[in-house]
Amino acid sequence: MGNLLKGISTFRGAVYPNDSALYRKLAREGQQPQALMISCADSRVMPETITQSGPGELFVCRNAGNIVPPFSTANGGVSSAIEYAVVALGVRDIIVCGHSDCGAMKGLCHPETLIPMPNVAAWLKHSHAAYSIVCEAYPADLSGHDRVRAVAMENIIVQLDHLRTHPSVAAKLATNEIALHGWFFDIETGEVQVYDGAVSAFIKAKEDQPLPAAVMGRGNPHVTHQTTNLAAE
Amino acid sequence: MGNLLKGISTFRGAVYPNDSALYRKLAREGQQPQALMISCADSRVMPETITQSGPGELFVCRNAGNIVPPFSTANGGVSSAIEYAVVALGVRDIIVCGHSDCGAMKGLCHPETLIPMPNVAAWLKHSHAAYSIVCEAYPADLSGHDRVRAVAMENIIVQLDHLRTHPSVAAKLATNEIALHGWFFDIETGEVQVYDGAVSAFIKAKEDQPLPAAVMGRGNPHVTHQTTNLAAE
Amino acid sequence: MGNLLKGISTFRGAVYPNDSALYRKLAREGQQPQALMISCADSRVMPETITQSGPGELFVCRNAGNIVPPFSTANGGVSSAIEYAVVALGVRDIIVCGHSDCGAMKGLCHPETLIPMPNVAAWLKHSHAAYSIVCEAYPADLSGHDRVRAVAMENIIVQLDHLRTHPSVAAKLATNEIALHGWFFDIETGEVQVYDGAVSAFIKAKEDQPLPAAVMGRGNPHVTHQTTNLAAE
Amino acid sequence: MGNLLKGISTFRGAVYPNDSALYRKLAREGQQPQALMISCADSRVMPETITQSGPGELFVCRNAGNIVPPFSTANGGVSSAIEYAVVALGVRDIIVCGHSDCGAMKGLCHPETLIPMPNVAAWLKHSHAAYSIVCEAYPADLSGHDRVRAVAMENIIVQLDHLRTHPSVAAKLATNEIALHGWFFDIETGEVQVYDGAVSAFIKAKEDQPLPAAVMGRGNPHVTHQTTNLAAE
Amino acid sequence: MGNLLKGISTFRGAVYPNDSALYRKLAREGQQPQALMISCADSRVMPETITQSGPGELFVCRNAGNIVPPFSTANGGVSSAIEYAVVALGVRDIIVCGHSDCGAMKGLCHPETLIPMPNVAAWLKHSHAAYSIVCEAYPADLSGHDRVRAVAMENIIVQLDHLRTHPSVAAKLATNEIALHGWFFDIETGEVQVYDGAVSAFIKAKEDQPLPAAVMGRGNPHVTHQTTNLAAE
Amino acid sequence: MGNLLKGISTFRGAVYPNDSALYRKLAREGQQPQALMISCADSRVMPETITQSGPGELFVCRNAGNIVPPFSTANGGVSSAIEYAVVALGVRDIIVCGHSDCGAMKGLCHPETLIPMPNVAAWLKHSHAAYSIVCEAYPADLSGHDRVRAVAMENIIVQLDHLRTHPSVAAKLATNEIALHGWFFDIETGEVQVYDGAVSAFIKAKEDQPLPAAVMGRGNPHVTHQTTNLAAE
Ligand SMILES: [Zn+2]
Ligand SMILES: [Zn+2]
Ligand SMILES: [Zn+2]
Ligand SMILES: [Zn+2]
Ligand SMILES: [Zn+2]
Ligand SMILES: [Zn+2]
Repeated sequence: MGNLLKGISTFRGAVYPNDSALYRKLAREGQQPQALMISCADSRVMPETITQSGPGELFVCRNAGNIVPPFSTANGGVSSAIEYAVVALGVRDIIVCGHSDCGAMKGLCHPETLIPMPNVAAWLKHSHAAYSIVCEAYPADLSGHDRVRAVAMENIIVQLDHLRTHPSVAAKLATNEIALHGWFFDIETGEVQVYDGAVSAFIKAKEDQPLPAAVMGRGNPHVTHQTTNLAAE
Repeated sequence: MGNLLKGISTFRGAVYPNDSALYRKLAREGQQPQALMISCADSRVMPETITQSGPGELFVCRNAGNIVPPFSTANGGVSSAIEYAVVALGVRDIIVCGHSDCGAMKGLCHPETLIPMPNVAAWLKHSHAAYSIVCEAYPADLSGHDRVRAVAMENIIVQLDHLRTHPSVAAKLATNEIALHGWFFDIETGEVQVYDGAVSAFIKAKEDQPLPAAVMGRGNPHVTHQTTNLAAE
Repeated sequence: MGNLLKGISTFRGAVYPNDSALYRKLAREGQQPQALMISCADSRVMPETITQSGPGELFVCRNAGNIVPPFSTANGGVSSAIEYAVVALGVRDIIVCGHSDCGAMKGLCHPETLIPMPNVAAWLKHSHAAYSIVCEAYPADLSGHDRVRAVAMENIIVQLDHLRTHPSVAAKLATNEIALHGWFFDIETGEVQVYDGAVSAFIKAKEDQPLPAAVMGRGNPHVTHQTTNLAAE
Repeated sequence: MGNLLKGISTFRGAVYPNDSALYRKLAREGQQPQALMISCADSRVMPETITQSGPGELFVCRNAGNIVPPFSTANGGVSSAIEYAVVALGVRDIIVCGHSDCGAMKGLCHPETLIPMPNVAAWLKHSHAAYSIVCEAYPADLSGHDRVRAVAMENIIVQLDHLRTHPSVAAKLATNEIALHGWFFDIETGEVQVYDGAVSAFIKAKEDQPLPAAVMGRGNPHVTHQTTNLAAE
Repeated sequence: MGNLLKGISTFRGAVYPNDSALYRKLAREGQQPQALMISCADSRVMPETITQSGPGELFVCRNAGNIVPPFSTANGGVSSAIEYAVVALGVRDIIVCGHSDCGAMKGLCHPETLIPMPNVAAWLKHSHAAYSIVCEAYPADLSGHDRVRAVAMENIIVQLDHLRTHPSVAAKLATNEIALHGWFFDIETGEVQVYDGAVSAFIKAKEDQPLPAAVMGRGNPHVTHQTTNLAAE
Repeated sequence: MGNLLKGISTFRGAVYPNDSALYRKLAREGQQPQALMISCADSRVMPETITQSGPGELFVCRNAGNIVPPFSTANGGVSSAIEYAVVALGVRDIIVCGHSDCGAMKGLCHPETLIPMPNVAAWLKHSHAAYSIVCEAYPADLSGHDRVRAVAMENIIVQLDHLRTHPSVAAKLATNEIALHGWFFDIETGEVQVYDGAVSAFIKAKEDQPLPAAVMGRGNPHVTHQTTNLAAE
């Protein structure tokens, strides 16, 4: 803890003073982050660092495996973070960010390692679909490394599917007021791959092009079409 | 999302290169963080920035209200993060970090604002003890601001009590292999107050003194005493 | 019950004899239905009649509101029916069939009528997203009748989203071995509208054209692309 | 799906026209079914066919194993269907209908076959009492076929016991406004056996005799007796 | 606590010495109680005193309202006590013992008093059937006192219905190895009324007559009949 | 049941008459117990006998293993008893009373014996921390007898930790209006050991000295300190 204590002191003495006006403004006016990022608790994946975000920019929910349980009556922390971000803060983008070499995904691929961690094993049930997909739809001869990587990538898409079951998200998608994003951070190379829903694949993000989204909201035509449909009956 | 996309690019192009050796080492050898920090999803409270931590140093679980549900059969993300941090990573310190001007704590104090957010309201039941304590044990004429602050501080202690109910934590406390910490970050001033279990109060951390802990493990004498006790019967 | 008793007798005496060979074969060889239909318990919506199916053709799960709870650790009857249909019976199609004048959807639109039915109210939480979508994305001046109809239609799509969170379904979608369908039965006209995922709208089914699906499995290219993607790194 | 699509068309073109007046009346006036039938999702057990019921006559809840979970705070689809049928529709009879060669009951007898279906295995816990009864109270040398049949029959009685724990049912039993029925459909012979609570056995239903019930409501004398009892103290 | 401390001392010094041989035998050989009593936590209803039982005679589960939740997957203390008593201890009788002037039953009749006690309110959902029965089947002009008494008595029967849903109990009833009892203790008069299942009423227990039971196990004939039934097919 | 029937009669005829005035007073004025005792269902551990308490003195919650589940949204009997005792009855002391030779603690140490008792196994998860503590912090060569005893003692402390998570208890501790006690009853010797939180050990209770408590409420200074702390900022 010595490092952390020193870090607190350094932050207070050397970092905070440069941003004190911003912190005071944020304390006075409250936060207005543009996005919610749901990422892994892994110490090597620091959301604000990867995105070079400052204070007040990113609402962050982190857990082992960047998991989003499907909406249900048994409420938990991720559901609450989503609801708060969408309803109270009005975020316009939600990012599910997975990463390479994820301990949670390794656990999924090697369930025997989870025996001494029954809670982790239970939590990872929310990622079983990703594991099933890799077992059934990927080449059987994937190496262990590639298998973990494939599970981590499919897991991002599975969690995006879960995200859509949350009423607050579903409603904003219907009015095209929110977009969902799936990102994969590669620890070794520092690169971020982005899931492009239009082509159903992860691609490398390019700064000078529009960021592809995993799930876009429905455009107005859909609603119009729907009501036309109703009127026609 | 433009800023985030640009941030990713900046990170990859200008930040990662300076730390590429560290990232590669972390990718190759895995993470070995010394501490688990449980903090709020609030965009103004960035764990790695406050503690000036680099990649690989801090395992981080974030949710609305820096809440730790008591251990139970209905497993969730926080329970899993704790279990993974203690059992798989062997962290020696767990920090529950609350903060000033917390939206979740304000929600507790103003339940009518939670009506459109039923999941947040349900999640905050894990903080009701903090609210009850402030209602019953604090002066009735606390200002709204002081009330939210008092609830946020008591909430840290309540979550530390919850933390002790997790078997993995309880076992490590019994062997004196883990310590629990309660921190309060003041957004406006950039200062961190630390809960000192020995005097049951938050104090200002001082770099040149040992960091006080909220809950220390039992020392050896206790175990010895216990077995003596057993032997004597 | 007099009618039902008489019906049993009529079935045994006048209907069964004509199909006895089929029933005996089904008893001997077991069922091999091609599809799972999830429909409402409503007495006016008879799955086998609407689809003119005979014994052995349709595996049927019925509940109030043709609801599919999202996959979760708290297992229930619908989750089990899905898993049994996909894993044990190998069905190739799952249909979520809603209908006009649905009492459950009316309850959603008039929550005060649910006060004496707390279990129904809790169950309908799985349809809240449909209600939220209609509130936020549909014209505010929809008539009561059109509102119930819109909620019933959106509810079908919401339940299809829930269906995708079930690992057994997700895995079969990834290998393109299953398709999901959304149907809307109009009690008054006897017509069935079918949701076409390609255009995001309900259309009238036409016998001489291929039946559009709500959700198709991923084709092989996707998997190939994915593995190529992995190989490229 | 070709057959189903053709069936929809046939229904609309050739069946509906004969019943269009009834369907329109039902659409206009709503449903008023006399009974709730809880039966298996099995494709060979078609409730309306077995009972020769038409549209509007039978409110139907179907799941794997015709199971009724005991009333509890964790609400589900069957509980909701019961509550809706009793409170909103005022049904006077509830039938739990099991059947021969039931895949769910076979799963109970051969738990190893449930390993790839964890949700089904969990759901069937609601039938464990039936399995325990057969293990402890039936001859040990029952053949596999007879064992499955015995479990299916005992399961019907177990689910009737569960049905009584639902407050809406218990209250109607106390005022003698509802009766509970246990039926067993034999796929091979097309016959229905009916549980007669008075003699604790399944008997063959006979059209010219009153249908025996599994559980009758309490008669008025009981209530009188009870209040006399109270008055006497 | 002074009284309790003194009581411990008195027990050790003046009571235990008289029974020390029995306590030592029980410590050496373990307990073999003949019955499980489920009674209220009320301080005025002492199970061993009412039944004049000594150490080792009565396995006792006590909670607010002598409630037995129906068997379910969400396990709790009462379910465990039942399972342990039946499976590990082999008790032959289970008694659900209610009482007059019960605070929990008063809470059911006056839900507004439960507002500051949300957990008690939730727990009492397991007794709602009793309340519904009294509302629907008892005279509307019952006095408050008689209403609480009627709810307490119906509650005993409701909990007996719940008891039958526990597989361990159901199995022992099927083999006639256990009997269920419903008792009502009147604090004011010291009398115990016993529910007689044969006449569906509470009667005064008489020492010189066989104790009536609420629910007897099935006799052998039933099983015989059942198997005959099977054989006949 | 013969003995119990005789016991009821003896109580009514020979015991009650001596205390009839007290019972009538208690029936008229209600109960006002000073303490809540949470003890094991074990037939050899009779709370009122051990403490020599009379009617009206001890509110008693009993279950297998004297377990207090941590506060959570899934409410149960123990949570309700605690809430009722603290909020409705205003008890000033809560005692968790474990004992020697406890079957539940033996089950924890020998999980294979719990296979036929899945509910007991699930319930005992609330005691796993005690088992983990003994595994990790006690000598590996403890005899079976000493191990069960150590688990039973640590279990008392674990349940006290759980007790603190209940908001009603936490609030009263903050105002110093309640104290928590951990007792261990030795069946063989009739002695009660008391946990002394000040020295973290069980000691023998002595009548002529103040009873040590496991957890005392916070004194006034703490609250003062806290508000001073707030004021100083
Ligand atoms: Zn990870
Ligand atoms: Zn916060
Ligand atoms: Zn409907
Ligand atoms: Zn079946
Ligand atoms: Zn009571
Ligand atoms: Zn015990």
